Amino acid sequence: MKKRNCIIGQSGGPTVAINATLAGIISKAKQSGEFQNIYGMINGIQGLIERRIINLLEEFANDDQIDNLKTTPAMYLGSCRFKLSDHTQDDSQFQKIVLILQELGITDFFYIGGNDSMDTVMKLNRYAKFIGIDINFIGLPKTIDNDLFGTDHTPGFGSAAKYVASSMLEVVHDSSIYDLPSITIVEVMGRNAGWLTASSALSRNEYNSAPDLIYLPEVTFDKDRFLADIENVMKKKRFVVVAVSEGIRDEEGNYLDADSRYVKKDAFGHILHSGTGKVLETLVYNRFHCKVRSIELNVLQRCAMHIASKCDLDESFNCGIHAIECALNNLSGQVVSMKRVSNDPYTIEYIHNDVENIANLEQKMPRHFINEQGNDITQDAIEYLKPLIQGEVMLRYENGIPTYLSCKHLL
Amino acid sequence: MKKRNCIIGQSGGPTVAINATLAGIISKAKQSGEFQNIYGMINGIQGLIERRIINLLEEFANDDQIDNLKTTPAMYLGSCRFKLSDHTQDDSQFQKIVLILQELGITDFFYIGGNDSMDTVMKLNRYAKFIGIDINFIGLPKTIDNDLFGTDHTPGFGSAAKYVASSMLEVVHDSSIYDLPSITIVEVMGRNAGWLTASSALSRNEYNSAPDLIYLPEVTFDKDRFLADIENVMKKKRFVVVAVSEGIRDEEGNYLDADSRYVKKDAFGHILHSGTGKVLETLVYNRFHCKVRSIELNVLQRCAMHIASKCDLDESFNCGIHAIECALNNLSGQVVSMKRVSNDPYTIEYIHNDVENIANLEQKMPRHFINEQGNDITQDAIEYLKPLIQGEVMLRYENGIPTYLSCKHLL
Repeated sequence: MKKRNCIIGQSGGPTVAINATLAGIISKAKQSGEFQNIYGMINGIQGLIERRIINLLEEFANDDQIDNLKTTPAMYLGSCRFKLSDHTQDDSQFQKIVLILQELGITDFFYIGGNDSMDTVMKLNRYAKFIGIDINFIGLPKTIDNDLFGTDHTPGFGSAAKYVASSMLEVVHDSSIYDLPSITIVEVMGRNAGWLTASSALSRNEYNSAPDLIYLPEVTFDKDRFLADIENVMKKKRFVVVAVSEGIRDEEGNYLDADSRYVKKDAFGHILHSGTGKVLETLVYNRFHCKVRSIELNVLQRCAMHIASKCDLDESFNCGIHAIECALNNLSGQVVSMKRVSNDPYTIEYIHNDVENIANLEQKMPRHFINEQGNDITQDAIEYLKPLIQGEVMLRYENGIPTYLSCKHLL
Repeated sequence: MKKRNCIIGQSGGPTVAINATLAGIISKAKQSGEFQNIYGMINGIQGLIERRIINLLEEFANDDQIDNLKTTPAMYLGSCRFKLSDHTQDDSQFQKIVLILQELGITDFFYIGGNDSMDTVMKLNRYAKFIGIDINFIGLPKTIDNDLFGTDHTPGFGSAAKYVASSMLEVVHDSSIYDLPSITIVEVMGRNAGWLTASSALSRNEYNSAPDLIYLPEVTFDKDRFLADIENVMKKKRFVVVAVSEGIRDEEGNYLDADSRYVKKDAFGHILHSGTGKVLETLVYNRFHCKVRSIELNVLQRCAMHIASKCDLDESFNCGIHAIECALNNLSGQVVSMKRVSNDPYTIEYIHNDVENIANLEQKMPRHFINEQGNDITQDAIEYLKPLIQGEVMLRYENGIPTYLSCKHLL
C-alpha cells in the first residue's frame, strides 16, 4: 500500500521555469509509485492556510499534461507574498498549517520559490522538529535574479538570460539602421544582483560588440563616470547600447528612480516611479542632445516562454526529480541545489543543502565577474553564463500563438 | 547579354520582415537571369545621394545568405528619414539622383518602405516622366502599423501582431498568479492606426478573455469612460489586462502623454514624455489604489524575429518577387500590394497599384472592426487578423542566441 502523500506550493515572483520544476516533482512522484496523493496548494502557504488545495494526481493523470505544464510560463499553482512569523513568538499560523497537513496525511511538503520561500521552508522545518512531527519540508529554488545562495545558479535564470541576450541582439539590429548618433538604454530586472543584466553580454558575437557598457547593482553608480563612459564609446561608434540593472544605486545608496532630482509627481501629488531607464534617458539626452531611447524589458523577461532555454527547463525539471529523491530518503529542511562540475563540457550535479545555511542569504556577482572600471563584465562571467542559455524549446502553437496550460484555479 | 541593372533601398522604421522583401527581390532578380547588377543603397535615398552604394549580387552570391537575410530583423541596407522636395520647385536633388542612377545604368529602382517612402517613389516617378528618362520606380510596402493604403495588409505587420498577441498571453499568465486585484496596462505601438493594438485580442483562447479592454487611436479617448470600463471589469475579474495604443487622444485631439496635466519636467526643465501607458498607470492607480503596472512593448514588437509569423515572412518575400515581375513588364510608378481573395482558406493575390493613388494616404481600422462602445474589437476584425500571424519560423541559433546576418555596412 502506498503510504506517502505530498503537497506542493509555489511562491514569489514568476519565472518561465517554475512550472517545469512542478512538472518534475509530479512526474517523479507518479513514477516512484510511492505516493497515494499529490496535492497542490493554490497561492502558496497563504492558500494552504485557507484550505485552497487541489488534487494534482487527478489533474495530471495524463503525462501529456505534464509535458504541457513544463512549457507553461508563470505559476500554475499561483503565488503569494506571505512571511511566516517566528513560531517561538506566535505559533498560531504554524498550528493551523500542521493541522491541515496532518488531516491530509502529508509526509512530504515541497515549496518552490526564492529567498522568502526558503525562509518559509526553514521556519516550518524548525517548527516540525520542535513539536516532533514527521513531515519532510523540502525547498526548491527558482528566481530569474539568480541570487539564491548555495546553488550554482537558479532555475528560471537561464531562460530569462536567453530572453535578455536575444532581445538585446534584436535591439542592436533595430538601433543600427539610421546614420545618426544614438544612445539606447536597456533596463533589465534585478534589484540587488546584476546577473540578469550581465547576461545581456551574451548577445555579443562576431559583428556585435554591444552592449557597449553594463551597469550592475554590485557597483556604485556614478552619473559623471557614466556620462564620460558614453562619451568615450561615442568617439568610436555611431550607436551606443547600454545595459543597466533597475537596481543601480548612487553613492548614497539611493535607487536612481528615487533620486529626488528626478522625482516626478502627477497632478495629485502621487510620485511617479518612472524607472531607472527613463531617468538615465533624460540624463543622457540633456547631455548629448542626440537620439536617445530607453527600453524596459519589463515582465516579458520572466514570462517569455517562447524563447526559453532548454538547458534551464531541463534542469528545473530535474530539480523536481531530485526533490522526490530527497523525500524518499526522508531528508527534511533541505533545499535542492545545483553544483557545477565543469564548464566545458558543461556538467551539473543535483545536490541538497541545509536550508539553515541558505535562507535569507543573497548571492551577488563576485568581483572577478565585473571589470575593474565597473562598467562591463569579464570573460569569467561569460564562461559562467554561456551554458545556461543553450538549447531551444519547441512549443506547440495553435492559431498562431503558443499553447500553454490553463491555470484554471487562478483565472 | 543582360541589359538590366537594379538598385534597392529601404526606408522608414524597421520591421521583422523588410529584409525578407529585400531577399525576395534579390532572389528573383538572380533567378530571372535578366540583371547584370543588383545594387543596394545604404541608408535609403539619402545614402544614394551620397553615393553609398553596395553590390548586392556579390554579397548574396550564395543563396544560403539570402535565406539568412530573410530571417534577419531590422534593415540590412539601413534606413533614412528623408523627404524629397517638389521637383517643380527645386529639382537639384532629383538631378543628382538621376545622374547617379544613369551612371550605374539603372533600369529598375525598388524602394521598400512606408508612407513617406511611397512619397519618394511617386516624386521620382513624376520627375522621370517629366524629363523623359526610362527607369522603372517601384515601391514595396512595409510597416508594423498596417496603415498603408491599397494593400490588404502590410509586410511586417503579421510578425509584430504575433509578437504582441503571444506576449499578451504571457503577460496574462504572469498577471494571474497573485490572489489580489490588479490592473495591467500594455502599451502597443501605433500613433494613428490601431491595427497592432487590436491584434492583442488574438491572445484570447479557451481560458483567456484578456485583453479585457482595447483602446485604439480611431476612437476618442475619454478618461472617465476608461475608468468606468475598468471598474466594470473588476466586478467580474480579479486581474484586469488592458491594451492601449500609444496614439490614443483625448477629446481635444491631444495625445495622452502630451496632456499638460501629466507633463513632467526634469530638473533642467526638459519635458519627459513618459508614454501613454505610464500616464494611464498613474490615472488608474489614483483611482483604484490597487496593484497597477504598465508595460511598454517598445521596439521589441518591431524587431523580435525570434517569434516572427511565417505567413508574414513568406508574403514579404513574395512581394519582392512580384516587384521583379513588375519591373520585367516595365511598369513604373507602381506599388506592390496584396489583395485578400478569401479568409478561409486564407488566400492572397499579389497585385500592384498606381503610387499616385496610394502615397500619403493612411488606412485606419474601419468602424465595423471596432465595437460600439469603442473599447474592444469585433469578430470581423479577429477574422481579418487571424491568418496574418499563422506559422512559426525556425531560426538557427548559435551559442544560445539567434544567428542573424551582420549588417556590416551599418555596424
